[in-house]
Amino acid sequence: MIYLDNAATTRPIGEACAAAEKFNKDAFFNPSALYKGGVENRNFLNTARENVLKYFPSGYEAIFTSGGTEADNLAVFSFGTRGNFVTTAGEHSAVYESFLELKRRGAEVRFAPLNKDGGVNISALTELIDENTSFVSVVHVNNETGAINDISKIARTVKSKNPRAVFHSDGVQAFGKLNTKSGFSADLYSISAHKIGGIKGVGALVKKKGVAVKPLIFGGGQEFTLRSGTENIYGINVFSEALKINSGKIEENYEKVAKIKRDFALRLNAEDMRIISGENSSPYVLSVSAEGLRGEVIQHMMEDFGVIIGTGSACSSKSRHSRILKECGYSNGTLDGALRISFAGNTSYDEAMFAADKLNRCVAALKGVMKK
Amino acid sequence: MIYLDNAATTRPIGEACAAAEKFNKDAFFNPSALYKGGVENRNFLNTARENVLKYFPSGYEAIFTSGGTEADNLAVFSFGTRGNFVTTAGEHSAVYESFLELKRRGAEVRFAPLNKDGGVNISALTELIDENTSFVSVVHVNNETGAINDISKIARTVKSKNPRAVFHSDGVQAFGKLNTKSGFSADLYSISAHKIGGIKGVGALVKKKGVAVKPLIFGGGQEFTLRSGTENIYGINVFSEALKINSGKIEENYEKVAKIKRDFALRLNAEDMRIISGENSSPYVLSVSAEGLRGEVIQHMMEDFGVIIGTGSACSSKSRHSRILKECGYSNGTLDGALRISFAGNTSYDEAMFAADKLNRCVAALKGVMKK
Repeated sequence: MIYLDNAATTRPIGEACAAAEKFNKDAFFNPSALYKGGVENRNFLNTARENVLKYFPSGYEAIFTSGGTEADNLAVFSFGTRGNFVTTAGEHSAVYESFLELKRRGAEVRFAPLNKDGGVNISALTELIDENTSFVSVVHVNNETGAINDISKIARTVKSKNPRAVFHSDGVQAFGKLNTKSGFSADLYSISAHKIGGIKGVGALVKKKGVAVKPLIFGGGQEFTLRSGTENIYGINVFSEALKINSGKIEENYEKVAKIKRDFALRLNAEDMRIISGENSSPYVLSVSAEGLRGEVIQHMMEDFGVIIGTGSACSSKSRHSRILKECGYSNGTLDGALRISFAGNTSYDEAMFAADKLNRCVAALKGVMKK
Repeated sequence: MIYLDNAATTRPIGEACAAAEKFNKDAFFNPSALYKGGVENRNFLNTARENVLKYFPSGYEAIFTSGGTEADNLAVFSFGTRGNFVTTAGEHSAVYESFLELKRRGAEVRFAPLNKDGGVNISALTELIDENTSFVSVVHVNNETGAINDISKIARTVKSKNPRAVFHSDGVQAFGKLNTKSGFSADLYSISAHKIGGIKGVGALVKKKGVAVKPLIFGGGQEFTLRSGTENIYGINVFSEALKINSGKIEENYEKVAKIKRDFALRLNAEDMRIISGENSSPYVLSVSAEGLRGEVIQHMMEDFGVIIGTGSACSSKSRHSRILKECGYSNGTLDGALRISFAGNTSYDEAMFAADKLNRCVAALKGVMKK
């Protein structure tokens, strides 16, 4: 199997799972317990927290959550009380649907339009921000097109228009892949473990010290009282181990994957395939469209060749057309044929090229059938 | 090591973890994906859901969450909009703190007092319910004293006073240990995986069909749109496997553990130890107090003997005295010496008796030191 749907989820890193396995065996203690095993697990949680924070400049702290979606919700609903709320039309559903909920609760929400590549139109976004804006959320890497929003620059622009506005970014597709250390600027940043070799059910909200988050989930007071519930000690430690393995490889992987993406796109038959991802996109996501064909049909043909690719966000697979690509202004023909090929640091170049060739074959075969 | 803090967390069942391991290896696919691996994982989620629902009468459905705390919060905040809210002084902090949050948001919350054994005073509870009561929450098994509240009977009493009131129970310490099938009656019921051989980070809100729950977490629409976020496929399947192993053993384990608890309590030196757990308590929890001594000192002495016991709820270990035992009306001397010994279906009788002997020795030794 050649797996090219890494934006939906990555294969957990075997060594990371193995290193954390003890937390499901002899070190299964509740991290709130006062005896040695409990105290040790509490220390392991804090080591995991440090391993997250090594990816950020100093002055940040991390609240572990059950995933990126919860982290996004924790951010949005912490500030959903007054003023207006600004986001983009290109958000992951975790932010997008949370904004729609704010609207149902009576808040004024504003959505900035997208450019053709899925990035936010920055001047339009800036115009939406005024002195009553309390919260702004802009996704770092668009999960469907891979478009990179320069969130640190956007954060500064937001602050220059309204220094009191809190700036959040969903970093689920960016964290561990793009630099979030030098020059990084955001008040709040959501991350997920299973997009970077961890397992599903773990994420974190990374926050600048002093930014006042309000809990979504109340109880025993874990995570500095900001997220109650017995900590997922196994999953958090798989994440921690995956981050240790990934640490220091961000640039190397970036270059490697950028070459794979570039050559993959070049290898596709240009007359059959529109490239949606723009110049300024994450190397980890390649969005294309076999215009006029059906993406899911191609996906199933590719599966028969042993190649797994996506048709768009796995999380919005219920609706026929991608909300985000629609917002980019594409026609139904382009939306029908949309495919998402997404890579990981461990994707092999040769396998990716094999997949590109198969994709050409599938598209050509389907076109042949349609001409008859 | 003899582990008698099973109410804090149980040791994950090795076979259950082994059976689910594939979800972190080759079957790591996102359950929302449309290709074969995704569809299969979606089916596995639904099989896990059926394995939960086998413990309940027909007419219930289950929403997977990140744990019992989130399930409690999902229940409480679904109904926190109008009228008054009734609970008990003996709730786990996940319900108790959620009610305090309702109060901060302006709702009228009412707490029913406890009997000496930690069970709710039913007549006092009944008096708190009126025509404006929208939500009632009563813990099934008190996590500190083990007191069993007859929630099915209480649910019927609640409905007879106000048929529109929604009845919830935190079943975290009861599920899989007490019968929740024949005669069971509750609109909503919270359960946790890691109290019954699963791993931390997984739980569910079991709800009667037709009871309208409102999501706490918005996004991709997983779990019938009631709980968004990529599903913790590994953890949910460990839970599912643990439930299969436990299935059909509820009565057998109950009898076995009841004998352990009875003989443990009988073996303790009566003059040194007050038994707090009442007649009508879960066999899985034994609450005692070495009055006048410090529980945590005894806990550490026991640890030196290789025996792990609790001092109270692991989740409220930050405050010196147990909130719940205080509500039972005990004096500071009793609160100081409080210990919680909690069993599991796989606890060995002989090890438990060994632990009881060591507990007598620790208490006698400490008393000797104090007399000097």
